[in-house]
Amino acid sequence: MNKNLIIKSLFSCLIFSFLFMELSFAHSHPSLLLTKQGVNEIKSSMGKISDFDNSVNELKIIADKALKSEIVVPIPVNEGGGYTHEKHKNNYYEMNAAGTMYQITGKKEYAEFVRKMLLKYSELYTTLGLHPSKRSDTPGKIFWQLLNDCVWLFHTALAYDCVYDYLNTTDKAYIEKNLFRPMAEFISNGSQANYAVFNKMHNHATWATASVGMIGYVMGDKNLVEQALYGSNKDKKSGFIHQLDVLFSPDGYYTEGPYYQRYAIWPFMVFAQVIQNNQPELNIFSYRDSILLKATNTLIQCAYNGEFFYLNDALKKNYKTQEIVYAVDIAYKNNPENTFLLDIAQQQKSFIVSDAGIATAKSLHNIKYEPFEFHSVFLRDGANGDAGGLGIIRAGKKDKTQMCLTFKATSHGLSHGHYDKLSISMYDGGNFVLPDYGAVRFLNIEPKSGGNYAKENHSWAAQTIAHNTVTVDETSNFKGNIKISSNHHSDIQYYDFKNNKIQIISGCETNAYKNVKMQRTVAVLENKTFSYPIVVDIYRNVSDSTHTYDLPFYYRGQMVSVNFQYQKFTAQLNPLGTKNGYQHLWVDAFGKNEKPVTHFTWVDGNRFYTISTTGNSNTEYLMTRTGADDPNFNLRNETAFMIRQPNVKNQTFVSIIEPHGFYDENKEITENFETSIKNVEILTDNEEYSAVKISTVTNNSFLLITRNKDFNNDSEHLLDINNQTVRFKGNYYFTELTK
Amino acid sequence: MNKNLIIKSLFSCLIFSFLFMELSFAHSHPSLLLTKQGVNEIKSSMGKISDFDNSVNELKIIADKALKSEIVVPIPVNEGGGYTHEKHKNNYYEMNAAGTMYQITGKKEYAEFVRKMLLKYSELYTTLGLHPSKRSDTPGKIFWQLLNDCVWLFHTALAYDCVYDYLNTTDKAYIEKNLFRPMAEFISNGSQANYAVFNKMHNHATWATASVGMIGYVMGDKNLVEQALYGSNKDKKSGFIHQLDVLFSPDGYYTEGPYYQRYAIWPFMVFAQVIQNNQPELNIFSYRDSILLKATNTLIQCAYNGEFFYLNDALKKNYKTQEIVYAVDIAYKNNPENTFLLDIAQQQKSFIVSDAGIATAKSLHNIKYEPFEFHSVFLRDGANGDAGGLGIIRAGKKDKTQMCLTFKATSHGLSHGHYDKLSISMYDGGNFVLPDYGAVRFLNIEPKSGGNYAKENHSWAAQTIAHNTVTVDETSNFKGNIKISSNHHSDIQYYDFKNNKIQIISGCETNAYKNVKMQRTVAVLENKTFSYPIVVDIYRNVSDSTHTYDLPFYYRGQMVSVNFQYQKFTAQLNPLGTKNGYQHLWVDAFGKNEKPVTHFTWVDGNRFYTISTTGNSNTEYLMTRTGADDPNFNLRNETAFMIRQPNVKNQTFVSIIEPHGFYDENKEITENFETSIKNVEILTDNEEYSAVKISTVTNNSFLLITRNKDFNNDSEHLLDINNQTVRFKGNYYFTELTK
Repeated sequence: MNKNLIIKSLFSCLIFSFLFMELSFAHSHPSLLLTKQGVNEIKSSMGKISDFDNSVNELKIIADKALKSEIVVPIPVNEGGGYTHEKHKNNYYEMNAAGTMYQITGKKEYAEFVRKMLLKYSELYTTLGLHPSKRSDTPGKIFWQLLNDCVWLFHTALAYDCVYDYLNTTDKAYIEKNLFRPMAEFISNGSQANYAVFNKMHNHATWATASVGMIGYVMGDKNLVEQALYGSNKDKKSGFIHQLDVLFSPDGYYTEGPYYQRYAIWPFMVFAQVIQNNQPELNIFSYRDSILLKATNTLIQCAYNGEFFYLNDALKKNYKTQEIVYAVDIAYKNNPENTFLLDIAQQQKSFIVSDAGIATAKSLHNIKYEPFEFHSVFLRDGANGDAGGLGIIRAGKKDKTQMCLTFKATSHGLSHGHYDKLSISMYDGGNFVLPDYGAVRFLNIEPKSGGNYAKENHSWAAQTIAHNTVTVDETSNFKGNIKISSNHHSDIQYYDFKNNKIQIISGCETNAYKNVKMQRTVAVLENKTFSYPIVVDIYRNVSDSTHTYDLPFYYRGQMVSVNFQYQKFTAQLNPLGTKNGYQHLWVDAFGKNEKPVTHFTWVDGNRFYTISTTGNSNTEYLMTRTGADDPNFNLRNETAFMIRQPNVKNQTFVSIIEPHGFYDENKEITENFETSIKNVEILTDNEEYSAVKISTVTNNSFLLITRNKDFNNDSEHLLDINNQTVRFKGNYYFTELTK
Repeated sequence: MNKNLIIKSLFSCLIFSFLFMELSFAHSHPSLLLTKQGVNEIKSSMGKISDFDNSVNELKIIADKALKSEIVVPIPVNEGGGYTHEKHKNNYYEMNAAGTMYQITGKKEYAEFVRKMLLKYSELYTTLGLHPSKRSDTPGKIFWQLLNDCVWLFHTALAYDCVYDYLNTTDKAYIEKNLFRPMAEFISNGSQANYAVFNKMHNHATWATASVGMIGYVMGDKNLVEQALYGSNKDKKSGFIHQLDVLFSPDGYYTEGPYYQRYAIWPFMVFAQVIQNNQPELNIFSYRDSILLKATNTLIQCAYNGEFFYLNDALKKNYKTQEIVYAVDIAYKNNPENTFLLDIAQQQKSFIVSDAGIATAKSLHNIKYEPFEFHSVFLRDGANGDAGGLGIIRAGKKDKTQMCLTFKATSHGLSHGHYDKLSISMYDGGNFVLPDYGAVRFLNIEPKSGGNYAKENHSWAAQTIAHNTVTVDETSNFKGNIKISSNHHSDIQYYDFKNNKIQIISGCETNAYKNVKMQRTVAVLENKTFSYPIVVDIYRNVSDSTHTYDLPFYYRGQMVSVNFQYQKFTAQLNPLGTKNGYQHLWVDAFGKNEKPVTHFTWVDGNRFYTISTTGNSNTEYLMTRTGADDPNFNLRNETAFMIRQPNVKNQTFVSIIEPHGFYDENKEITENFETSIKNVEILTDNEEYSAVKISTVTNNSFLLITRNKDFNNDSEHLLDINNQTVRFKGNYYFTELTK
């Protein structure tokens, strides 16, 4: 052993001892989210910052109400939204509130409440087997699924930390022996399935590791903490730290999509803060180029008017949820240079009652901040950023009427992913103009599938036809097989968001269907010819065999006009198909059009919208409505305008989506209910180039050429088109043609 | 001739001469809505009241934009929402804005703009025949219907008044000769149909008489004014004053319903203010016990959270429309003791730029006012108050979550009336819980039936089955014959809104169906047993022949649970019937229930709602959805839970509508998704009494007895019921039974 090695070993020993000491003896309570310093700051700020006072008061109301009520810890029976489910949820919120109020006020009644409830839970927990519901593969003991037990422990660990010093040794020993240690053991290793969840790369694992790690820190249990951080085997191949490596892309995009990023950011940020307070030497917030701070910013970016994008399984969620309050406060506390987070905090008007919350509230009160900047961005997917990604284009007025378009060319997104390669969604004028259905779930409404995902979530919402993208031969991407889908991802061919006339993104998908290559290029144009930005959508499908291609555009609001004859089914409705989501679509109407450009206009909120799409006499136009094969009233009725091209090898759909005019029923104002698009022509469409000419009723016209192969920003191109020679450099060309 | 008679005659002569002078010579310009005094007040207030400044500025923006644009007065072509329609509308708004700005600033450019546009209109008008659209029986010349020509003249008269003194004699003579006089003649007497409209008792006549009267005042044309006030024959059997006698009930309820009351109140209040300014001796605002001031208050009362009730033909309209700004400002100006109107003005944050507007704005700035009090009220219908009426019950927290129930037992309501005798609507928790469909119309969207009522307005929206009331034998009230319907009205049997435990109203309808007597008693209970007020609905149908009775409850949101087996139609939908509105209903599901009480629960916004209704094994439960037989996509999809009792003589439906619990998807909170109603029993149901016992899951129970005949607040009743002798005085009895 050479000298260097000896020194290294000694140093390692020292570090290890230091860590051990740190964990076992060195820290005081509370030390998870609240510290003594934070408590002092909160105390000295009371009455000075009204929004923070309100947040304290909200906790106080919960805690005071709890103190006056009987403590009830029922035997678990119900599923999501049911009595025992909601009661146990409420109990942890009450313990958390009371624990926090004990720290702030020093009033022993609060601590005593937590003590009594913990004793009751300790008593109950030893008697519990698995929850009686059979809905989950990994049932909990208190809740129908293990996940909720983790969330329970997560909140209760915070409460326990707050009252730790209040409890006597006997109580602590009793509670830890009967409740926390068995629960941590159950979560991390209660069964093969639980072990697998704990060591998985998935948001459930984040909750599992965070909750076990947090109770580990409070109890000074180094073993639990290390398992939480580095996986059951402590080999760093799983556990919380490895989740940071794997679940986020280098751009901070979470592979399950924004809905679950919102949910996962909660344990991620809270546990990170706990680690920071207890093992600051791990520098957790700097880890992987500050991935957690980046992920928080990216999540906020994935929203329109404060509502998160509907991608994969998703329900309606906005910035004001408590998880985003936690994330924003903790992110700001750990990087106060990001003052734009104060813009979000200002919208939330709510803070965590913790060190991070008071720091944010104080800054919001004292510091000038810039607004959070929403901009066009491409977010890479995949741990290494090489698994496709999500394009977000924003255009037009920077207010609540701004257009926002999402372009999804990601990997599958784990168990909550949908089969919707190259799908788009569009927001404009405050409306969800081309909506994504989201998930079929009535969260916490027990009579609706126990509050969990309904079976139509798989049979409808996840299927390709439920999205604004192409379905081939009435079959979903990868035949709806998640194992195969998870092996692949779409690719981005190119994008450019820096041109002030056009923002463009282009992706391709070659695995979703055998023998079909799909390329979609979506551009947003801003030009004085149009009242608002418009979307140009070039969707190219190439195959050497014959297929039927369906491209639906889902819309909300009322159909206004079309330029073709259609048959509306007035006396009988039938579904469009029998499987892969088609069984859920009633066919409202059917038509064809001899004209080369088909217009479909509807009104939604204060604007009109028109899709103008190219077609031929074989193209079929369908108006559909979800709701068929829905025995339990689980589906919303959502309408679509669907373009179907039957029995062709190749099919390029070119569609313009134009917001236009203004409508106000209350004030009786109507402007421009007709589209300004007169013509859309595909001038060229081959493996090298697709070229589209768009003409307006005001006789303006525009040419857009996109490269279809060999993408390179610097390569030079020369082609004859529209009786002209066009020369350009890069992947696309856009110009306004002279009149 | 005796001395008294001579004096009387002389006096009449004097009055007459005085009137004549007043009209011909005495008044200055402007004198319609603005006066010189008002102009001075506005000038001296500028910069002091920001909301009023904003209102002036809004006009200034319109006027300044107009000054910079080319004056275009197109040959009329389009229908509602189309180019020429919107252009001519815009033109009168521009003239009005410019005229007003001329008065306030004295800048001649504004007056010059009005002059030029009036000259262009004078030129055009002489060339115009009837509007080319064939949609209306009374086409205008500038617009597709005469009504809009009246509205044009209404606004333009205001503008002309403002620039009157600016124009030279030649211009005035030219404009009056070519534009105003022929237009006034066209409106009042251009055809037999126009003459009939002018002299009708209808909102169209109000616009016609107001516009003709207003231009009459500006031009000093006594003849026109007298025709406007007293009818074409000046015999007071028609005209504006007679409309005041006939179109409002003594309670200020307008027979067409709130949607048209909102529209009619505009010319009513504006023309009244004009009369007040020009013939103050008529004391128009005191006329008929101040009917116009009363009508304004009543109209405001007919709303929930600022949105007017959907009764008869109705679209979405709220307090912020300009017509309500006009009405509130003018009503306040003419009775400043009604300070509660300032509460509405404060919500509008907008004022007319006129004497009334500045008076209201100043008071809002300087005076303490009480909130406008929304309360339960019964509004009599009919000129004499003897044609049934509208019951409005409000209960629960006095905030945006308050419950409001409407009970319609009125007369038909002229051409915009629906066949919905004894129908109810319900608002609660900010939701439209039991909605009325309103009208099928896409106002001002030309491709949708020219912006006018779609044919489904008659075939669906007006039919009985489209409402929350009973349809007998799939046939609408009065077989859908407006002439017969207009001869009858429902009657109110009794009501009592003064009891703090129960508010109750009872009505009957004996003409809508031959041989069927319908009695509906609706009560709202407030009791600590229930989280929110609940509705008890006793709907009694009596006949000596056999019928099928259908009672639908329309609802929005998502169905949560029912307590019976149903068949959901998953692979084919068919309509419920073939006529009388039934052809528009898809049958989603069908079921029966062996249990005596059927529960239907849904979630809407933040609350759950359950209908608990009595039935037997023959009762059929249908879930329906509008949208069948709708070839042009004119219908919204609205869902209903329908109770059908086939082949019985008598049928009493007893239904409890209970709002319960709380739901927040964003915050993931669910409380009480199950109804607290355990049982509903009909204890007695005969021509004397109906008695209902309601029991809850908490073992509370309530007894409600309603009289079914010989209504009298003072009569004493004694009956044996539920093994008890009950003694009560009046028309109903309500008690909480001991446990």
